[in-house]
Amino acid sequence: MELQSLSGVALAELGRELEARYAGFKGRGLKLDMTRGKPSAQQLDLADALLDRPPQGFLASDGTDARNYGGLDGLPEMKALLAPLLEVAPAHVIIGGNSSLQLMHDTLVRAWTHGVPGGQGPWGKLAKVKFLCPSPGYDRHFAICEHLGIEMINVELRDDGPDMDHVEELVRSDAAIKGMWCVPKYSNPTGTTYADGVVDRLANMPTAAADFRLFWDNAYAVHDLYPEGDRLKDVVAACARAGYENRPLVFASTSKISLAGAGVAALASSPANVADAKRHLGLQTIGPDKLNQLRHVAFYKDLAGIRAHMLRHAEILRPKFEAVTQIFEAELGGKGIASWTKPRGGYFVSLDTLNGCASQVVSLASEAGVKLTAAGATFPYGKDPRDRNIRVAPSLPPLDQIRVAMEVVAVCVALASVRKLSA
Amino acid sequence: MELQSLSGVALAELGRELEARYAGFKGRGLKLDMTRGKPSAQQLDLADALLDRPPQGFLASDGTDARNYGGLDGLPEMKALLAPLLEVAPAHVIIGGNSSLQLMHDTLVRAWTHGVPGGQGPWGKLAKVKFLCPSPGYDRHFAICEHLGIEMINVELRDDGPDMDHVEELVRSDAAIKGMWCVPKYSNPTGTTYADGVVDRLANMPTAAADFRLFWDNAYAVHDLYPEGDRLKDVVAACARAGYENRPLVFASTSKISLAGAGVAALASSPANVADAKRHLGLQTIGPDKLNQLRHVAFYKDLAGIRAHMLRHAEILRPKFEAVTQIFEAELGGKGIASWTKPRGGYFVSLDTLNGCASQVVSLASEAGVKLTAAGATFPYGKDPRDRNIRVAPSLPPLDQIRVAMEVVAVCVALASVRKLSA
Repeated sequence: MELQSLSGVALAELGRELEARYAGFKGRGLKLDMTRGKPSAQQLDLADALLDRPPQGFLASDGTDARNYGGLDGLPEMKALLAPLLEVAPAHVIIGGNSSLQLMHDTLVRAWTHGVPGGQGPWGKLAKVKFLCPSPGYDRHFAICEHLGIEMINVELRDDGPDMDHVEELVRSDAAIKGMWCVPKYSNPTGTTYADGVVDRLANMPTAAADFRLFWDNAYAVHDLYPEGDRLKDVVAACARAGYENRPLVFASTSKISLAGAGVAALASSPANVADAKRHLGLQTIGPDKLNQLRHVAFYKDLAGIRAHMLRHAEILRPKFEAVTQIFEAELGGKGIASWTKPRGGYFVSLDTLNGCASQVVSLASEAGVKLTAAGATFPYGKDPRDRNIRVAPSLPPLDQIRVAMEVVAVCVALASVRKLSA
Repeated sequence: MELQSLSGVALAELGRELEARYAGFKGRGLKLDMTRGKPSAQQLDLADALLDRPPQGFLASDGTDARNYGGLDGLPEMKALLAPLLEVAPAHVIIGGNSSLQLMHDTLVRAWTHGVPGGQGPWGKLAKVKFLCPSPGYDRHFAICEHLGIEMINVELRDDGPDMDHVEELVRSDAAIKGMWCVPKYSNPTGTTYADGVVDRLANMPTAAADFRLFWDNAYAVHDLYPEGDRLKDVVAACARAGYENRPLVFASTSKISLAGAGVAALASSPANVADAKRHLGLQTIGPDKLNQLRHVAFYKDLAGIRAHMLRHAEILRPKFEAVTQIFEAELGGKGIASWTKPRGGYFVSLDTLNGCASQVVSLASEAGVKLTAAGATFPYGKDPRDRNIRVAPSLPPLDQIRVAMEVVAVCVALASVRKLSA
């Protein structure tokens, strides 16, 4: 039954039980880390062949010697491999290095120093630049904004995507709002996939800023936990249809497909945005590592090869995610003190406590040897206005550790809740 | 004898001879490219083992799984490999991706958006920022400045380095001068190595800007053509002794040591500069490809391994460089119409024609099927004030092509000179 309906006496009794269980965990000297959205070694082993010599040698399909300089925007076969994942034509793809975060950061910095096509000069010269940040969201996105002094506006992330009434109202009237961060599929940390209607509204909404951009971090495009994955509407096509061809900047990488530290990142966008990015890249770099592109092409061959590979990831990840939600259900189900996502893909489970309890849960868990992502990290400026969201990352630790860690977390949630309700 | 002392009749006779030779070349339908400072396939073959699986597997010396995220500033063993090349302690090294150009670009852009340690905020917020550009120099350096709207001041590059009287005078009085590009060893394109006295003066000179930086692109640190290479004074130590610890930003990469497109870049500097760079990098990227670092460490082992490898590069490059200077000597020697460098390292030969002739030589050569770097490219804004400098890149083409191409160039130089002297 819900803790809110317990009598004071019953609540106190429950509190004593929980304190005892918590003390028991503390006595075990645990050292568990649930913070990092990293693939496990077992997952990395799936792409073991990527450590080998590219089987096709060092010559690309167009005769390029992949060992030498050149190939600023990627080899044709690498574009062809990732284009269907990004749902665009290969000509709209720019291949980056090993980090899509870097593509996002650099794209935003370019806008900062030089502006974007259709804009009126460098964003960095403006008195104020704002970004919409659906939250809970990805802390690395927010960190880039904070670093550049971009004001972040918190928008509620709902079950079908960002609160679009709020989004439309904001962008319609405020020309300082230049962009919006989106993780549109299996969102970090909630696992939300934007509904078709949400994608359409994002594509069609009028914005006061003529150079408004959707920073569309499709980090989990093929990262399904179950054979039938979520489907995400094609934002590039939707924006083009709406007459806002330059609006979306789509990012992805193979980091959580192949090797987290040695994957291949990509950016896809309109011809104008792609040409603009290439112009800057020509000044910035000699081009990304093409040998790694050849290795990826040989290993995956095509999107079907990537999908087949992702099924093997899912077999490793699914039991871990299910362990998290099963333990939450067993320990916290029906108690009215917490809710959590049951993601069908991505890398995280999002846990909401009673308002005002998340920081205490993180700190209680830490004292019992279970490290969680800092409370608030999923919100702009690291501040969760309701202090209730906790991001749980089950990919890295082994299953038995996840079970123990989640039991600890559940007891901490219950304990913090009882304390709050008793206060 | 010098063409300047020929009679009008003799000059006309010589002109006819040269026109005939030039027409002969044009009739051969040549298609030769002397523009690109790229290593040849034969050189890349020397590092063939870098295409293989890292022999030590994927675990770094500190237990890091090189396949996974992390390692923002590089693996300890990679720092240890490049630190002696950069002449600093490993703790002062940041390992980048595959492009030192990117490290330079990004370092300058960070200064643009955020400023540098000891400075007073973002350079991009200032009314005017200027850089000193010893010329002839590297066009990619100048292109970054032009892109950011940094005013470039041309300083003459002499046989022992930049004209230091001029440099000292400029930086002493003008606080808008925030930096200076230097390729201090086997400079692009002249092959100049800065003399010890020049390095000392750069380290010790008072600057009006408190946050003045030397962008020290040590691209050719170990790129000797002869067993006894030039020696470059350690700028980091010199600046530290002078009390300007934060002044030098040293860049290097293995691009022209291992594989041009899949090497490892590095930045070395003071603790404050290194800490500042790391702070930014943490926002920009998940870290560079660590597997490629492991491959490099296994292949080269230490600086001695790199030096042994560079001897093999030299064996391939030396005959090409000597062919260039031999043909220039045979065709142009003693004629008073051209001078050229005889570099002991690096990737280029620098050719100076009579004033006002370089553009015509490049255009004549192009019509005869020999592509040269555009005249002016070695100067800020692509404008050689005396229109006399031409950069020759002999690394990529095979020896027989270089011989033909240089004969064409020499004839074009002589022809343009005769035309000028006859006018």
